[in-house]
Formats: sequence, C-alpha cells, structure tokens
Amino acid sequence: MTALDALLRWLDLAGIAVFAVSGALVAAQKRLDVVGFVVVAVLTGLGGGTLRDLLLGRTPIFWLRAPELIAVAAAAAVAVFFLRPRIADRFPALLWADAAGLALFAVLGTEIALISGAQPWAAVLLGTVTASFGGVLRDIVCNEIPLLLRQEIYALAALAGGTVFVVLRLEGIWRDPALLTGMLVTFAIRGAAIRFGWSLPNYRPRA
Amino acid sequence: MTALDALLRWLDLAGIAVFAVSGALVAAQKRLDVVGFVVVAVLTGLGGGTLRDLLLGRTPIFWLRAPELIAVAAAAAVAVFFLRPRIADRFPALLWADAAGLALFAVLGTEIALISGAQPWAAVLLGTVTASFGGVLRDIVCNEIPLLLRQEIYALAALAGGTVFVVLRLEGIWRDPALLTGMLVTFAIRGAAIRFGWSLPNYRPRA
Amino acid sequence: MTALDALLRWLDLAGIAVFAVSGALVAAQKRLDVVGFVVVAVLTGLGGGTLRDLLLGRTPIFWLRAPELIAVAAAAAVAVFFLRPRIADRFPALLWADAAGLALFAVLGTEIALISGAQPWAAVLLGTVTASFGGVLRDIVCNEIPLLLRQEIYALAALAGGTVFVVLRLEGIWRDPALLTGMLVTFAIRGAAIRFGWSLPNYRPRA
Repeated sequence: MTALDALLRWLDLAGIAVFAVSGALVAAQKRLDVVGFVVVAVLTGLGGGTLRDLLLGRTPIFWLRAPELIAVAAAAAVAVFFLRPRIADRFPALLWADAAGLALFAVLGTEIALISGAQPWAAVLLGTVTASFGGVLRDIVCNEIPLLLRQEIYALAALAGGTVFVVLRLEGIWRDPALLTGMLVTFAIRGAAIRFGWSLPNYRPRA
Repeated sequence: MTALDALLRWLDLAGIAVFAVSGALVAAQKRLDVVGFVVVAVLTGLGGGTLRDLLLGRTPIFWLRAPELIAVAAAAAVAVFFLRPRIADRFPALLWADAAGLALFAVLGTEIALISGAQPWAAVLLGTVTASFGGVLRDIVCNEIPLLLRQEIYALAALAGGTVFVVLRLEGIWRDPALLTGMLVTFAIRGAAIRFGWSLPNYRPRA
Repeated sequence: MTALDALLRWLDLAGIAVFAVSGALVAAQKRLDVVGFVVVAVLTGLGGGTLRDLLLGRTPIFWLRAPELIAVAAAAAVAVFFLRPRIADRFPALLWADAAGLALFAVLGTEIALISGAQPWAAVLLGTVTASFGGVLRDIVCNEIPLLLRQEIYALAALAGGTVFVVLRLEGIWRDPALLTGMLVTFAIRGAAIRFGWSLPNYRPRA
C-alpha cells in the first residue's frame, strides 16, 4: 500500500461524507425527519458506486463488507439534522467540496471498472456513473428532476478526468501521477464552471 | 420443514398481498388503470426482496422461479381495482396488516441475508431494505416523496426486530423462537407508533 | 448467422434509436440541456434490457461491450436537441415507431430470457420488462408518473406477443417464423390501440 493509497482511503471517506451532506441538504429542503436524512444521505453517498458494481456484476456490493462507509454517510446526515447550518451561508463551501468528491470518485470509479475488465470507454462511463448517480438517486427520492440533467458541466467534467486517467495509463504512465492528473482535470473543469458560472443552453423549442 | 416453515410460507404470501394492497391503494389515489394497479402492486410486494438479492448477488431473482408470488400481488391489485373499497374505511385495517408485513419481511429478510453470508449488521440492514424498499418504489413510480422518509418509526422498528433476531441467533437461541421474538419486537414498536401516533420531529431550519 | 439475424441487428439499433427519441422528446418538454437529453435517451433506450439482465444475473451488462448501442442512443438525443422538431407534427410518426420498438424488444427480450434458462412465463414477463422499463425510467427521472401505468394496451400488447412467441417455440415452430409472428401480434395490438384509441377505464372511487 503506497502513501497515496493511504491518503485515498481517507479521501474516499471524505468524498462519501461530502455527497452525504449534499443529500442531507436536499432532505432539509423537504423537511424530512432524521431517518429521512440518513436514507437520502446514504443513497447519495453510496448510490453511484452501487450502480457501477451492479452493472459490472461485482457482488456482494462493496459496502456490505465496509460498515464505516455507511456509518460516515449516516453520521454526516445526523450532524446536518442537528447542527441546522444556515444553508445559504454554506452553499459555496459545499459546492467546492462536491467538486472535490466528483473528481475523486470519477477517477477512482474509472480505475475500479478498468481493473474489473471493462473496456477503456466503458470504464470512463462507469467512473462518471460512480461520481454522479448518487446525486440522481437523491433527487429522484426527493421528487426533483435530477440536477445532473440540468447542470451539464458536471458530467462532462467527470468524463474528461476519467478519459485523461485512462489515456495516461494506456500510455504507460504510473498509477499515482495518472490518478492525480485525472482528478485535477475534473476538479479544474468543474471548478471553472462554478467560478465562472459556465453552463450550456437549455433546449428551446422552435418558435 | 418445520411447522413454522409451513406457516411462514403462507405468511410470506400474505405479506406480499398486504404490501400489494398498499400499492393498489396509492394507484387508486392516482386513478391509474388496472395494468397500473398490477405494476405498482408487484413493485410494492416484491421490490424489497429484489433489491436485497441484487445487492447480495443472488440471481436469477427469486420470483423468476415462483410464479405464485407475482400472481398473489397481481390478484390483490385486481381485487382492489374492482372491489373499490372505501379507502377511508379500510385504512386502519391496512395499517395494521402492513405492520405485520413489516415484521415478517424485516426478520425473514435478515435471515436470508445471514444465510447468504452477510455480516450481522449488514444482514439487519438488508432485512430493513427487504421490508421497506417496496414502499419506496411504490411512492417513486407514483411521483410521491417516499413515506419511509417521513415516517421514521417504520424503518427503526424493522431495524430493531432484525437486530433482536441476529443477537438471539448469535447467542445460540434456536431459529423458531428467534424468528418469532424478532417479529414481535418489530410489530410491537410499529404497532405502538400507530396506536399512540409516535413520530419524530421533522427538520426545522434555524430561524 | 441467418439473414434474419443480420436484419435483427439493424432493427435492434433502430429500436434503441426510437426509444431514445421518445426520451429526448420528454427531455425537450422539460427544457433540459444537451447532456440531460443524452442521459434520458440512454436510460430510455437501454434501461429495459439492463433491468432484464440484472434480474437474470447476466453481468457485466451487455452494453458495456457494445459501444454502438450507447452511441446510437446519444446520437439520437443530440439530433433531437439540435434539429428541434415540431413535436406536435412528429408525434404520430413517433407513436408508430415506438410500437415497432415495443414489438421488437418484447419478443427479442423474451428470447434472451428463455435462452438464459428462465421459465416460459418468466421469459414473457422479462420480455415485457425489456420493452417497457426504459420508458418507466424516462418518466421517473423526468418526474412524471410513468406512461406505462396509464396506457394499458402497451404492456398487454407486449405480453401477448411474447406469449405467442413462447407458445410457438414450445410447439416446435422454427425460430424465424416464431419471432416474426410474435412481433406481428404485439405490433397489431398496439397499432390497433393507437389507431382506434383503445384504452381501459381508469379507476373511479365508489361514490
């Protein structure tokens, strides 16, 4: 286990916590109770990796052997429920933390799919599923149209970082620099979209 | 096969029927047609066990080899469609029948997960998934925020009964008394919540 | 590979494209951006086959080894986004194309399930899942009550065609005529429902 691996384990937990907080904030908008907070937070934090593994046939699902993953998501939800942050105040911080989680899971999810034998293009796609499907589940159970469908620089940033990671690996670059570069690409694109308000035009019907 | 096993097979069908009726009643609120009733009822009755088995990797899914399970759910839906019960009249009876279904599936689902090799805490969680995810699917396809997220004594009752069952089994208690005790615990907690109107407070944002 | 097989490969892609267009049209109603169009179109085009294979345990999922399937769905979505068809004008054409896709996927999905060892009744059910669950996913992510639940001649047509196919095969009829007959039955029933406005009554509560 390299130093990067040790760091990634902690970052993985931090990424789940960040996504769980984004789930808890939507639960707060819907005025759910504490069990609702926990359920939405767990779906948001672990849903993406779960769909990736179901599609790959990697069962039993990873979190059935890792109680700390669900515990982190549940703890984040309970903390939001009782701390009642002023949502408007914390939103920018959450947006940047979410960008970090996106970068982490897009590239790590791509690597897991590659190791499981997925073709390179499929691995990139599954990395994006890992990073974004939890948020889709969050919005479906809270009866909203998923933000993913209306926030295009999100999925594109995940696809770009995963692609860079796969290309670097196929070119023979070592794992650690490939991981870091891929994550940096996703974070930079998503960060620029946040910072500069980038967004593609929505559909407008012909007049 | 013990006498309890024979009884449990019938109770299993009865539990599916009860959940299917709860699905058909939501379909009635949405004024669906008879096919809509059947689809919602089948999702409600079999959805929880299906997700449990997908997460565990137990495929092909159990109901593909047990036509009676889908037949019971479909028959319950058709009966509700044509009998048109006065919903207000029957609601309390349904609530208690649903509590019985919850108790049954939480504990039986926990046992199935244990037998499949899940760790004790994961088995309890999967038992709760078995007992509650059908209702989540029901509410998602009917475009409602899942009741589970706003009815906290539901999931907590399932977790409590599953935990009691697992602890008794690990302590060496025989299967039949462990099953019955676990079911009784879930039913008692959920029943008390129904009887006394227990409910945890919803989230309220900081003033 | 028979001549029919070669034809079916092309029809398969055409069926995915048709379902993807139906997804893109719902995305247009919701004014999503181009990424939203692609996501909804891919879910609609490939969601049914994905659920069938998850239930059967056929993983890794087929489209992870067939990039052309996702490419066709994505291309259809992008085309709808930029061509901006007058939706009212094209709706009848789409309805008939969708009926063709329904016929194709109901029978081909039934055959795949049979080959995977499903019992005949289960294979028919999984064929209907293949043909209809993509549309259910489309409506769930777009926050609508699934059309399937309110359009009963849709699922019934799929069940009928799949049943005819299975019965013919069990009677010893060759594959090609059995496939074509099953598809014709589904298309004829669904087409008659479209042409004559057939529809079963919705639920009406007792006065």
